[in-house]
Parts: sequence; structure tokens; C-alpha cells
Amino acid sequence: MKEAVLRLLKAHRPGYVSGEDICKSLDVTRTAVWKHIQALREDGYEIEARPRAGYSLVFVPDRLYAEEIRDGLSTKFIGRQVFYRSSVVSTNDLAIELAQRGVPDGSLVVAEEQTGGRGRLSREWHSPKYKGIWFSLVLYPPVNPSEASRVTMVTAVALALAVRKSTGVPAGIKWPNDLLVGGKKLCGILTELGAELDKINYLVMGAGINVNLDRADFPQELRDTATSLKIETGSEIARVRLLQSMLVEFEHWYRIWLEQGFAGVLMKWKELSVSLNCPVRIHTLNKTWDGWAEDVDEDGALLLRLPGGRLQRLLAGDVSLRM
Amino acid sequence: MKEAVLRLLKAHRPGYVSGEDICKSLDVTRTAVWKHIQALREDGYEIEARPRAGYSLVFVPDRLYAEEIRDGLSTKFIGRQVFYRSSVVSTNDLAIELAQRGVPDGSLVVAEEQTGGRGRLSREWHSPKYKGIWFSLVLYPPVNPSEASRVTMVTAVALALAVRKSTGVPAGIKWPNDLLVGGKKLCGILTELGAELDKINYLVMGAGINVNLDRADFPQELRDTATSLKIETGSEIARVRLLQSMLVEFEHWYRIWLEQGFAGVLMKWKELSVSLNCPVRIHTLNKTWDGWAEDVDEDGALLLRLPGGRLQRLLAGDVSLRM
Repeated sequence: MKEAVLRLLKAHRPGYVSGEDICKSLDVTRTAVWKHIQALREDGYEIEARPRAGYSLVFVPDRLYAEEIRDGLSTKFIGRQVFYRSSVVSTNDLAIELAQRGVPDGSLVVAEEQTGGRGRLSREWHSPKYKGIWFSLVLYPPVNPSEASRVTMVTAVALALAVRKSTGVPAGIKWPNDLLVGGKKLCGILTELGAELDKINYLVMGAGINVNLDRADFPQELRDTATSLKIETGSEIARVRLLQSMLVEFEHWYRIWLEQGFAGVLMKWKELSVSLNCPVRIHTLNKTWDGWAEDVDEDGALLLRLPGGRLQRLLAGDVSLRM
Repeated sequence: MKEAVLRLLKAHRPGYVSGEDICKSLDVTRTAVWKHIQALREDGYEIEARPRAGYSLVFVPDRLYAEEIRDGLSTKFIGRQVFYRSSVVSTNDLAIELAQRGVPDGSLVVAEEQTGGRGRLSREWHSPKYKGIWFSLVLYPPVNPSEASRVTMVTAVALALAVRKSTGVPAGIKWPNDLLVGGKKLCGILTELGAELDKINYLVMGAGINVNLDRADFPQELRDTATSLKIETGSEIARVRLLQSMLVEFEHWYRIWLEQGFAGVLMKWKELSVSLNCPVRIHTLNKTWDGWAEDVDEDGALLLRLPGGRLQRLLAGDVSLRM
């Protein structure tokens, strides 16, 4: 009902809608309308009330509320169901819980802050309140678990393109799961899954995008290696619009993969990559590799040309570019 | 404490242990001893009480109680922690829950019956009370998710050998996850995992072994395709001893894999296989393949020689042997 009141206010923006009209449209009492207006104000919406004219919405806060995300979202299934939290330990953890309960395909979990945000291999992901987009998608792709890495690649392509289109910032993909700008980390992706040997039960794609963090918002140890869209552009970015654009791009590339095969995604991934065709050093769980990053295959594995000429296939690892 | 009383009774078997001695050994009152004796009787233990002599254990029920499974179990970590349930929806589901809470490596979940036991691809697994061994192990193998299928292979080898050694029944392995006797299904294995792209967060290996089912215990539609150890041997099998033997074999082959590599397991798997080197028809999720089952690779994939001569690699599927 609060969402319906908000929709009416938006429809009349920048004009006024009378309390009586809201009552009639939604078949509620004046007292109920007043309560919803108060609730919206507590959510950060600025609503002017003028005798005889009624209510006018004058400011919409940049919060990742479900109703804001859904407002004007043109996707078919990605983000149609939104689980919003002001604070959460980790959007991936919550998404895994929800996936095990069978929430709809494409469900979105989004939080204003994560108190225990995780990257690959349980590394901490710094997720301060209102400063980024910390979200996860619940997916049930009808593919083998061995193809799960393709979701990470679809995501990297989608997020890089959304960032480029929405902000002009030239985000590039660093294998296996980051977006960089000028060599600094803008975004990380963490794909987790529950599976049988030949069937994915659920897949959770989590991403963290540094949007409106200032340099001082990063912990000391990240200041030289991480960046944000605000740092890159010099201005605040509207998070809701950017997230919507990411959801639209994600759905587009995800469907291309499932309906037309992975070749198109892979080609786009390579085009956007900043860690191919260069010398790299790669730390895997138990070894360090030096070589030439020659290619990436359909399973997201890096094909590393070793000094001796042999081609080594790596599923994941930490890359540093060697200059 | 109940377990301690049981241990004392077992230690004195077939003789008597006086109530007073139990009190002294365990530092409890006569009333407490009496309560534990009553609780054991309710669990199915038959305990004779004779004035002046004390208590004597005359019958141990074939229940999969934690204290029975641990009694004399020679494993290092497999089954050291036991979660016993009289009835459960699915031991795998419970094991996944426990794994997410971080129970110890090798924890065993075992139930007298499953009300919603599952096989591969969510197919029903018939699990009547007291008639089989329905169990799951929680494991945290330090390997890539792509190697998860090796746990299924380790399990198949271990269970086939345990069945052969304990009962003499010549169980064979049918790719990808069953044990057969004379072409009929004796046992199914269902491996599930929670993972990141290059790290297994947890793995749950579930198995169901038809032990003491009579033909009439199977639903009509399974009577021609399933069998049990009782049907094959003509006599009741002690489930606890068989499960212990399975746990010991499992730990043995699991450690061989992790410590010495997979080659030894794979060789044993092939030796025990009944679906290699023969013509087969295989139904996968979206296709039917006819060919010659030529080999199995280190990832558990079947290498199928197609009529045209091409070798097709299949991760899983339903095999029927063509004669």
C-alpha cells in the first residue's frame, strides 16, 4: 500500500495529489494515507503537504528500495522479486538461504551495507553503508555445474557494459572475477552454487560495485588498489539507475548465453578484458605461475603459455600483470 | 551417561555387573542407573536384572545408534561424529544443513528411514524403516569442484568392497553412481556440494543401501530392477557391522585419493565396474546416446565410442546395457 501511495505521488510529480484523491484511488481512509506518507518520509522521501493542494513528492532518496528498483525496470525475470535489507552479513549468504527455499529465478538480494561481505576464497569485501551496490541474484540455470563459471563471465560483461553506458567509466575485466579501472579494483564477483554432479540446484551470483566511496571510505590498505565510480568521475552516481542498467544488461547476456550459446558472451568478454595478451604472474591455491595470458576458454579457464612453451589451463587464481 | 552404562554392560557381557559397581564407576545414584537401564530398554536393548547379581546385556538391537556405530570403529575421522535420526526427510538435506553450520569433517548422518529420500535428479529413493542403511557424510575435500565426482567414485569402490568383504555378495559398479548385483540395483550414491568456482565449501556424499528389504518391501515398480543383501544372501545382515565396514573402506580410499592421487582409485573402480567394455544406451538430460562404453576418465566422465567412431564424453546419465 505504501508502494501504491508512492506510485501516485510519482505520477503527479512535480504537481500535487490531494489526500482525497489518494483515498479514493486506493480505497483507504485519510488516517491511513497520512500513516503511509509518514512512513515514506521515514524512508527518506521528502513530501510536501500543502493545505487544499495535497501532497507533492519533492525528493527521492538514493536508496535501493524494492519499489525504486522495480520502478521502470524493463527486465522479464531478473530483479522482478527483490529482497531489500538495510544491513546484512552477506548478500550471497542470504541469497543461498533463499535459493534453498526456492525463491523465483532471477530474485535479487540487495543491501545498503554488508557487515561480512565476502570475495573469492572467503576474503573480506569492504561494503560500507549507502556507498556501493552490494547485491546477489538467485539463478537456476539449466546447465552442468562445470559451466557455472560462465555466469561469472556473463556478469563481468554485463557489469562492465552497464558501467560504461551509465557513467562513461572504461571498466575492464580482469580474469577471473574483477572489474578494473586504470588498474584499480572497481567491482568483484563471487559465484557460488549448490549442485549435484550433473545438475545445478541453485546458483548465486554476487557482486559488489564501489559506487560513491570517497578515497577516505576505503581502509588504508585498499587505497592504492581500489577505486570507485565517484573517484573516477568526480561526481555522485545514482545507484538505483545504475543497478537497473546492470540488471537489464545481465538479463540480456544471460539469455544470449542460454538461448544462442556462449560464443557471443565469450567474444564480448575477451573484447572487454584487460588481462589477456600480456605477461602475468598468477597465484593459485598452491602454486605461482609466470607466463603469457594467451586466451580464455569456454569454461572461463585461463590458458597460460609457460616459458617452456607448454600451455597451462588455470580455473582461477590471483593475477598480477607483469610489466 | 546412557552410553557409559551401555559400555559397562558390554564390558561384562555375557556376565553381570552389579548396580553398585555401575554407581561407583560412573559416580551416579542407583535411581539414575535404573533410569538409564530403562532408557536402554526403550531403545531396544534387552537387559536382564537379577537380584544380587545385577544387570546383564542379553540382546543388542540392530539399530544404527551413534554409540553402536562408534563402538569398535577404527576410522580416524569418518563417522567420529554421528547424527542419528529415527526418521528424517533426507539424510543429504540434513547433512547439507549441518555442513553449512560447519560440523566436523567426516561427520556421519544416519537415519532408520527417509520420508523423502532422493536419488540423482531429485528422483525418489525408497527408504523403509530399519531395512536399509541410509546415510550421508559431510566432507570438506581440499579440491576443485570439478573433482567432486571423484568422491562418488571413491564411495562406489568403498561400498562395493565393503559389501563383498562383509557379505560375499559380488556387488559391481554401474556408472555413474549405482551398485548392482546381477543387474539389479543394490545401492545408489548422491553427491551434492556447495562451492565457489575453484573451491568446495562443503560436499555431502549420500548413499542408500538396500540391506534387509524383502521383495515385498519394494514398491511394485521396483521389484524387477532392485534387490537387497537379504534377497541375495537369504539371511538378515547386521547393519551396524556393515556400516562400520563401509566407513572404514571409505576412509581408506578417500585418503588414498587425497594423499597419493586418484590413479589407484580409478584402477579399482574400473576393476569393479560392470558397465564398461560393453554396448550401452545412455539417456542424458536432453539426448539419448548409443555406443560402446570404452572408458571412464579421472573426472568420472564416461568415454562413449559412437557408431561413427567419435569419442563422446558424458558427465552423467542413465545407462541401460544393450545385449
